[in-house]
Amino acid sequence: MNGNLNQDTICALATANGMGALGIIRLSGKDAVEIAQKCFKGSNLLTAKSHSVHYGFVVENRTEILDIRPETGNEKQVSESGNQQPTTDNQELIDEVMVSVFLAPKTFTAENVVEISFHGSPHIAKKILEVLVKNGARLAKAGEFTMRAFMNGRIDLSQAESIADLIASENEASRKLALNQLKGGITKEISLLRTELLNFVSFVELELDFAEEDVEFADRTALSNLLIKIENKLNSLIESFKYGNAVKNGVEVAIIGKPNAGKSTLLNALLKEERAIVSSIAGTTRDTIEEVLHIKGNAFRFIDTAGLRETTDEIEKIGVQKAKEKIASAKILLYLYDEFDSTPREVISFIKEFQRKDLKIILLHNKIDLKGGYFENDFDTKIKTELFPDVTNTILGISAKDPESVESIKTELASYIEDLRESESNVVVTNQRHYEALKNSLLAIDAVKEAISAKISTELLAYELRNALENLGEISGEFTNDEVLGNIFSKFCIGK
Amino acid sequence: MNGNLNQDTICALATANGMGALGIIRLSGKDAVEIAQKCFKGSNLLTAKSHSVHYGFVVENRTEILDIRPETGNEKQVSESGNQQPTTDNQELIDEVMVSVFLAPKTFTAENVVEISFHGSPHIAKKILEVLVKNGARLAKAGEFTMRAFMNGRIDLSQAESIADLIASENEASRKLALNQLKGGITKEISLLRTELLNFVSFVELELDFAEEDVEFADRTALSNLLIKIENKLNSLIESFKYGNAVKNGVEVAIIGKPNAGKSTLLNALLKEERAIVSSIAGTTRDTIEEVLHIKGNAFRFIDTAGLRETTDEIEKIGVQKAKEKIASAKILLYLYDEFDSTPREVISFIKEFQRKDLKIILLHNKIDLKGGYFENDFDTKIKTELFPDVTNTILGISAKDPESVESIKTELASYIEDLRESESNVVVTNQRHYEALKNSLLAIDAVKEAISAKISTELLAYELRNALENLGEISGEFTNDEVLGNIFSKFCIGK
Repeated sequence: MNGNLNQDTICALATANGMGALGIIRLSGKDAVEIAQKCFKGSNLLTAKSHSVHYGFVVENRTEILDIRPETGNEKQVSESGNQQPTTDNQELIDEVMVSVFLAPKTFTAENVVEISFHGSPHIAKKILEVLVKNGARLAKAGEFTMRAFMNGRIDLSQAESIADLIASENEASRKLALNQLKGGITKEISLLRTELLNFVSFVELELDFAEEDVEFADRTALSNLLIKIENKLNSLIESFKYGNAVKNGVEVAIIGKPNAGKSTLLNALLKEERAIVSSIAGTTRDTIEEVLHIKGNAFRFIDTAGLRETTDEIEKIGVQKAKEKIASAKILLYLYDEFDSTPREVISFIKEFQRKDLKIILLHNKIDLKGGYFENDFDTKIKTELFPDVTNTILGISAKDPESVESIKTELASYIEDLRESESNVVVTNQRHYEALKNSLLAIDAVKEAISAKISTELLAYELRNALENLGEISGEFTNDEVLGNIFSKFCIGK
Repeated sequence: MNGNLNQDTICALATANGMGALGIIRLSGKDAVEIAQKCFKGSNLLTAKSHSVHYGFVVENRTEILDIRPETGNEKQVSESGNQQPTTDNQELIDEVMVSVFLAPKTFTAENVVEISFHGSPHIAKKILEVLVKNGARLAKAGEFTMRAFMNGRIDLSQAESIADLIASENEASRKLALNQLKGGITKEISLLRTELLNFVSFVELELDFAEEDVEFADRTALSNLLIKIENKLNSLIESFKYGNAVKNGVEVAIIGKPNAGKSTLLNALLKEERAIVSSIAGTTRDTIEEVLHIKGNAFRFIDTAGLRETTDEIEKIGVQKAKEKIASAKILLYLYDEFDSTPREVISFIKEFQRKDLKIILLHNKIDLKGGYFENDFDTKIKTELFPDVTNTILGISAKDPESVESIKTELASYIEDLRESESNVVVTNQRHYEALKNSLLAIDAVKEAISAKISTELLAYELRNALENLGEISGEFTNDEVLGNIFSKFCIGK
């Protein structure tokens, strides 16, 4: 843990920017209560109990000039310098507020924290922050409150990151994963094993002190067994990232088909109810043009649907190149065809070109309404035989505009996420940084295993063990440099 | 006061919509604490002191189904209906929160109030509201919290309105006026006089009981004196609306001049520093295209500046009609001319056509840099002589791009607001409804005065007095019907 504690008191707007019934400004630091008291007219905050709320006004002291004047007894103070301010009332009221006091260490940052709840006008927020700064606080940098919580040892780094994830969570699945991480999920999984490893490191380092005597304090077999245990845990966590990433960032889906295969009809049918919801949420638009469908709390992102609505066709017009790009970044391919416009050979050769291990292909035999329903016939039997040693792929007979067809596709999409979840671990990795740290840890553990099996010098073994420990400590932030920290917290919003 | 108290408990997001570090959901009503407790895992809220804050989790009880099963002793409960939910842990955590408890009557609504501070994701807000509704709360309508504060007698109607004004306040001046109103300013001014009047009404109504005996309990001279006092107060308040309205809604300014008179140069110079600020605040765009300049905390709105930037000219091209429309809605006219393109006659005839009592005209003699400075010469002397029996109008010699010229114009604009402030009353009316109510009260008082001087029957005098009382009670909401109330509170944001 970095011990470099900040002594200054920070302040920021903690609620979303914009007009609301209430806004909250948060102060944290040694002098949080004293600074708040200087700007507060109400009960005495300095003697307030922790976790108590107080009614009053934020005030601005206008005429500090009075303080340096000689005492003039009880006579009414008159401005001597042509100053027209009413000196009898030298406090300007800024807003009627509720002030909550939280005393260290049982607070969000483990420092003294004050929260000011005001009438939610951005102008008033600005004014209150000005007054706080005038009285000794400074404006917080992005993520600085959470960074302090981390620096002061109240939460570990992965918990700090989960706070940003919680705030950004847009669906049930990502909220749950973030909350689980906030509760320390991933760190708990690793820290026990790390502690066991640390014991071995101590013994191995003890051996160095007795190097002349050629003793072995650390049982190499027991160490190897521990390493295997750690490796298994790391592999299971790494595996969980597929699911975690799908939940956090959504699953990319490509819809491909010939012109008039019914792609835009299908997309419209899938998004039917979603449309109204999506369009009413600001900020869902991403850089690339895509549509998002939520199934059971998970997001499916339809890639590059811009051209699709106008049913321009990538396969014919722009050629295979464009389809290739779309499919390359997708995890799921919906391939639409029908018996009227395609041959089994065509479908097979297209899929053969694009199939890959981590792509789920769902073949959609469209326009079955024109045949009076779906019966697997020669057409699809041929396709199945050639393509489906790979069991994860499926053929669905559909009619793009029929609600029942749409449901069957949704079920198939949902099962993709369910399948990813198979990992027996309850903890799911959702964070790219954690994923990288886990992969590096795995490499470091491998290096230790090699060092043992190669019966390498104790010095080098100790070095590799230390390296593995550091890697394992990166997720919780026990071994993380300032640059990485700065990078993590700068992505937070101001006020968190 | 309407005595129709709501028994149900309402809930809503109180902070601005969008992503923030924190969001606040507010509950108000008899069962606020009980409902919060049902969704809360942490300390016992039911025994919490008022104004205390509690750490914990919002939880959702998933398997109510368990409650109706027969007791099965200590054996592990197994799902009997293919239900795969983990029945050992039947609470789903929604978010880590801080819950503030405020017990009636010392709360915002005078009812029990609970505030839940959560990680500010709109998704989590939605989820928590769902859980609250499941447990017996209902979603609040716009302004319903404030309406309850009013209904329960904690604040009067003008204070309720001031809360909406505070939230919407975009500058210092409007914030101050709203805060003053929240502190009961306008109601205080009127209620003393109203109480005095009420005493007279009692006496007059007593006379009705003794109608046969022709006695006068109410001293008509004293009553007349009171009426004059009330009238003066009403007039002064009505007068203050000019200032209040200017502060609250800004002052509309028209810039007029021939092509190449320098209108767009001037506008750019005036808005120079403002531009960056204005463009960074979301939601400042209004229906009509206008630019806003803030001087000493007051807003000046430049009307219909769209065409102006491209220096199309209203006087020549579109004719006088367009200029007329602009000037008609303006309170200040900036008229730009110079000696090179105009004659005194032209300026005089234009101004004569448009001048009116409530329009401040500032003549801007532009391009003085081409003459080496401003000296009042024959040109302007002629204009002055003809136009300026009206002393509120001014000629400024300027050079549109010179910062000093810009400052002199700003000073002149600021003085417009200062002049409006002359009213000796500290209370300023900012609300159109109050303004109308005051004018109606004035009419009602006039009617009473007439009734007295016409020595009309005591019955009719009593009637007119009652009418005046009702009118005077309208601002504070003592006599306001449900439709008016509904109208006022529907303009609030949800959560307030």
